[in-house]
Amino acid sequence: MVIVLEKNIADKQIENIIKHLEDFGFAVHKSTGVEQIVLGAIGVKPDFDTRNVKIIDGVAEVYRITEPYKLASRSFQKENTVINIKGISIGGNEVMMIAGPCSIESEEQIFTLAEIVSKSGAKILRGGAFKPRTSPYAFQGMGEEGLKLIRKAADAYHLLVITEVMEIAQIDLIGKYTDIYQIGARNMQNFSLLKELGKTNIPIMLKRGLSATIEEWLMSAEYILSNGNKEIMLCERGIRTFETATRNTFDLSAIPVLQKKSHLPVAADPSHATGLRDKVLPMARAAVAAGADALMVEVHHQPEKALSDGPQALLPEQFMELMKQIRLIAEVIGRKIA
Amino acid sequence: MVIVLEKNIADKQIENIIKHLEDFGFAVHKSTGVEQIVLGAIGVKPDFDTRNVKIIDGVAEVYRITEPYKLASRSFQKENTVINIKGISIGGNEVMMIAGPCSIESEEQIFTLAEIVSKSGAKILRGGAFKPRTSPYAFQGMGEEGLKLIRKAADAYHLLVITEVMEIAQIDLIGKYTDIYQIGARNMQNFSLLKELGKTNIPIMLKRGLSATIEEWLMSAEYILSNGNKEIMLCERGIRTFETATRNTFDLSAIPVLQKKSHLPVAADPSHATGLRDKVLPMARAAVAAGADALMVEVHHQPEKALSDGPQALLPEQFMELMKQIRLIAEVIGRKIA
Amino acid sequence: MVIVLEKNIADKQIENIIKHLEDFGFAVHKSTGVEQIVLGAIGVKPDFDTRNVKIIDGVAEVYRITEPYKLASRSFQKENTVINIKGISIGGNEVMMIAGPCSIESEEQIFTLAEIVSKSGAKILRGGAFKPRTSPYAFQGMGEEGLKLIRKAADAYHLLVITEVMEIAQIDLIGKYTDIYQIGARNMQNFSLLKELGKTNIPIMLKRGLSATIEEWLMSAEYILSNGNKEIMLCERGIRTFETATRNTFDLSAIPVLQKKSHLPVAADPSHATGLRDKVLPMARAAVAAGADALMVEVHHQPEKALSDGPQALLPEQFMELMKQIRLIAEVIGRKIA
Amino acid sequence: MVIVLEKNIADKQIENIIKHLEDFGFAVHKSTGVEQIVLGAIGVKPDFDTRNVKIIDGVAEVYRITEPYKLASRSFQKENTVINIKGISIGGNEVMMIAGPCSIESEEQIFTLAEIVSKSGAKILRGGAFKPRTSPYAFQGMGEEGLKLIRKAADAYHLLVITEVMEIAQIDLIGKYTDIYQIGARNMQNFSLLKELGKTNIPIMLKRGLSATIEEWLMSAEYILSNGNKEIMLCERGIRTFETATRNTFDLSAIPVLQKKSHLPVAADPSHATGLRDKVLPMARAAVAAGADALMVEVHHQPEKALSDGPQALLPEQFMELMKQIRLIAEVIGRKIA
Repeated sequence: MVIVLEKNIADKQIENIIKHLEDFGFAVHKSTGVEQIVLGAIGVKPDFDTRNVKIIDGVAEVYRITEPYKLASRSFQKENTVINIKGISIGGNEVMMIAGPCSIESEEQIFTLAEIVSKSGAKILRGGAFKPRTSPYAFQGMGEEGLKLIRKAADAYHLLVITEVMEIAQIDLIGKYTDIYQIGARNMQNFSLLKELGKTNIPIMLKRGLSATIEEWLMSAEYILSNGNKEIMLCERGIRTFETATRNTFDLSAIPVLQKKSHLPVAADPSHATGLRDKVLPMARAAVAAGADALMVEVHHQPEKALSDGPQALLPEQFMELMKQIRLIAEVIGRKIA
Repeated sequence: MVIVLEKNIADKQIENIIKHLEDFGFAVHKSTGVEQIVLGAIGVKPDFDTRNVKIIDGVAEVYRITEPYKLASRSFQKENTVINIKGISIGGNEVMMIAGPCSIESEEQIFTLAEIVSKSGAKILRGGAFKPRTSPYAFQGMGEEGLKLIRKAADAYHLLVITEVMEIAQIDLIGKYTDIYQIGARNMQNFSLLKELGKTNIPIMLKRGLSATIEEWLMSAEYILSNGNKEIMLCERGIRTFETATRNTFDLSAIPVLQKKSHLPVAADPSHATGLRDKVLPMARAAVAAGADALMVEVHHQPEKALSDGPQALLPEQFMELMKQIRLIAEVIGRKIA
Repeated sequence: MVIVLEKNIADKQIENIIKHLEDFGFAVHKSTGVEQIVLGAIGVKPDFDTRNVKIIDGVAEVYRITEPYKLASRSFQKENTVINIKGISIGGNEVMMIAGPCSIESEEQIFTLAEIVSKSGAKILRGGAFKPRTSPYAFQGMGEEGLKLIRKAADAYHLLVITEVMEIAQIDLIGKYTDIYQIGARNMQNFSLLKELGKTNIPIMLKRGLSATIEEWLMSAEYILSNGNKEIMLCERGIRTFETATRNTFDLSAIPVLQKKSHLPVAADPSHATGLRDKVLPMARAAVAAGADALMVEVHHQPEKALSDGPQALLPEQFMELMKQIRLIAEVIGRKIA
Repeated sequence: MVIVLEKNIADKQIENIIKHLEDFGFAVHKSTGVEQIVLGAIGVKPDFDTRNVKIIDGVAEVYRITEPYKLASRSFQKENTVINIKGISIGGNEVMMIAGPCSIESEEQIFTLAEIVSKSGAKILRGGAFKPRTSPYAFQGMGEEGLKLIRKAADAYHLLVITEVMEIAQIDLIGKYTDIYQIGARNMQNFSLLKELGKTNIPIMLKRGLSATIEEWLMSAEYILSNGNKEIMLCERGIRTFETATRNTFDLSAIPVLQKKSHLPVAADPSHATGLRDKVLPMARAAVAAGADALMVEVHHQPEKALSDGPQALLPEQFMELMKQIRLIAEVIGRKIA
């Protein structure tokens, strides 16, 4: 921690500040500059609240000098984390495609989509059985019945399953059917849920919260990592800003930022980020061009009848066109679509 | 729902749009203006996703004309909701003061603070036993031991208790000790938790999510209301913006906005909104002046030793000064501090 | 400037970083901690771009330790700036009320409003003659004719005049009629305009930009101050956030924040911040309670006929009620309304 | 305009609202639904402030149904605007590359960079002679001397020139040297400047304001268009959000959104959007993949000595690599780099 003192500070005040810091358990170094004095405080625990120092009289500014996360950081682990599931790997050279409907709605629906997804070359089938909906009156998902259907459809087409878990009580149940747990944006800081999922050994996709900074996002990954589960991919899905022309603002720069700060794979979800079907293709291309390790898109063969998020689902032929284009984009940066 | 069509649209396209709307179950009215045609679609369920219409060819704009929440709205219930707990009422003419530490830390601490809070005239004691912390390495609360202590301290000083519930599994346990459940900002859209708390008969304080619009906040209240629990107060605690000089941006205008749209009482929390002790007093005054029905502030007699959020806790003498000043402010608008 | 180096950095890399810093003209101190090395770099010019150091290999983080503004800072000038104009002072113990229409529209209009404003006890008349409008098709103001009218009306009722200046070519013209130049939110970083206004000796109200941080706002004040004009008041008028229930989000916490960082008086404008008449009264009270040194509100006797911003203008009787209430609020904090 | 009335509204109130609307000059249609009454108001001028209606008693919501801009809209002009300058075209099938330093610093510097830019295949040389700087103490540009140098360098290497104009008094001077005027983000709503530039016949690049919505941005283009200048390209350069890991948040989704709403070409500037050199390459690729019609990047052969924005400037070899990669990306979507 670095503490900048106010200009023209009295010696007695400096002593008082140093005393406080030592009481907190720090070793303190003092540097006297031309205009200002700077203190270095060494030995802090990562969770120390720097505001405790900021409010001491005579302190102008305080800077934490260590990242608050550790296991998630690139400085802790230099090599990329590669998640291996049944012969498929995420975080390596291949860009993994994840596709399917927003919600599982019926056997006919999920089998039709599994076939489309598989034929186009995607390897992971998405679909929600428990849906977090802003309105209590909206469709809330098929529950376990849906889980059974997506598992059956995925197996029939040799796909992996990813599906969302919303609460602790669902962890075991969903674990029986899924290959990857998805943590939704609204649960990114549901710390109780993060801790419990950290104790499982099923890989996790952690979506970014609507207003989460990249640092907070990595702190949430740290919750999972510190409980033992090392197989996490992050998923950028748009943040909340003042712009309303799209559902959210797709923060694609987060991809190279995360790849520098962390070793965890980074996915991107242009369907939720933009919220409108006709923006998904260009933004999927952009995400792959920016270096995403995986892409998640919503597809539906009858989106006008979808029980949730139909307007952002690609039609099957649009999805096939998307796969064609991103294959070429991936090649430009020396990668392949898996 | 109102649908504005594109200029120079062909008749056949209009028919197609009307057909779609009727398939969704709407009765459709057509109004032909000088430049543009507008369709009115009547009969929609509150959860209808208007993007389903926005993506039909020929549609320029779509507006939902009914609020997506019902039970929480002022048009559903004209009179203010007044929450009565053991002879104390929230949402009436009195402005209710809620105070105490961020976390319960020891018997000595919570009794000392209960005494201070009670002597200054506050009626409700706050204190967390389960803490949602950004870092997995930070103090996570005393758990049930803490609940027992706050109950004992509150009873000794004739105070009510408010404490946070973070997950479904804690509901029953916390219910044994608390008078009001607090739902934290990060759980405002933890829909599973909202539903379960909606089935209890203990009053609830629902804090605003960091990036929640006022409409989404009322939708979360609707989750609780539609499950049967009618005793909810909302709490503004700052939203996330680009400004970093304060921990969050205190959106005090939300108070009069909510009081027009809804019948639920509105509290304000200047401690979390600003994050720094010396900003709490002016912003507490401002909140009462803006019309808040309750105020929640953090107080600590040894904030430099607090296990969480010490830097935003008022010292006892500052809290007494605050009580004095807001009493006078309340009088200006014809209210009293309870 | 404080530079935190990456963990496990090689000695040669450290030397390279120090060499770079010395080339930029810094004196460098090295502190070796348990986990990380920290460099202090002394002697930087306030405009040094710290990103120049952030991109050197081996650098983890860089912190500027001096505020980038000087003349505007409280550490440069301890006592409050008090602006004195024709016997009226802003920034002292009195809270100054500024009121009037958005735009000057006619002789009848501005005289009527000058009378209302004056009778209620306000001392400064506002009104725009040149209007910055989002749409090129909207009313753009009466120009010099309007300036003559507001001057005449103000003189008739012993009021000061404040009016907006949008471009350099208007400075002299407006200077002939006004007592205070207003710089609008959209021009807060029109640096050419700031420089020229800095060369005048007429006091200035500098409104906060829609997305300006408090630091950037003070930097804009610094432009004016460093060109010689010391009489500046800042005006909080709402910032842009994701919330759309109000026109902007009124950041009242900026008032105590600015009063700590700077010696300049701080005004608040609840009319532009909220954009709706019925929110102006509670937010005006809140602004005074938060410590504002001046308040600016829009008033109109026929708001439904106003050529701009009618919906946020108070009716005369509402304005009188507002004056009554804020007088009482001001007393609570030991101030008076001027 | 569509006006939704409150539920259970009295007939007399409805009459009053209709009367108001007719007084504003509207023809009014009334539609009675099951729960609510909706009024359609036809004949509004594009600059009508809908809040004038929102504040009438009994009105629940008001929606403007026409876009507030006209000349900038796709419905006004179906075909893309293609800007032709000395044989080069922007907005056609080719993706135009604009490159050069942030500021013109010396003859040696601008000639060196002109050569690099030209050899790599870019067609337009950027460089600022008048710089908008947050700090009054920072380098403010070389002025006319700089303009002469960039013109000479561009001519020597057969490049076009783009340079920023900050104030009306600079328009004629800069017009003697430049092929394209650049309007910076901070001046996007400097309406006086927009009007004057609208009267010139030199093409314009209009950068997006830090907190400008896409609609406001198009309104600013409308200011220029309605004054006669039809040759405008828009430039996305990042918006301000809560995320601080990058200088701004690059809103790439704005590209397909604008291309649907407007006929104007859309450029993207990954240098300012991210603010750090190592993020420019991936985000430049992403911008081309998202469909940008032009790309603007900063290049410097000695960025550590640059007088402004050195940290975001690409090194010459990085720029060449960027050109190579985006050529391939452009091909994937059937375009070429010019």
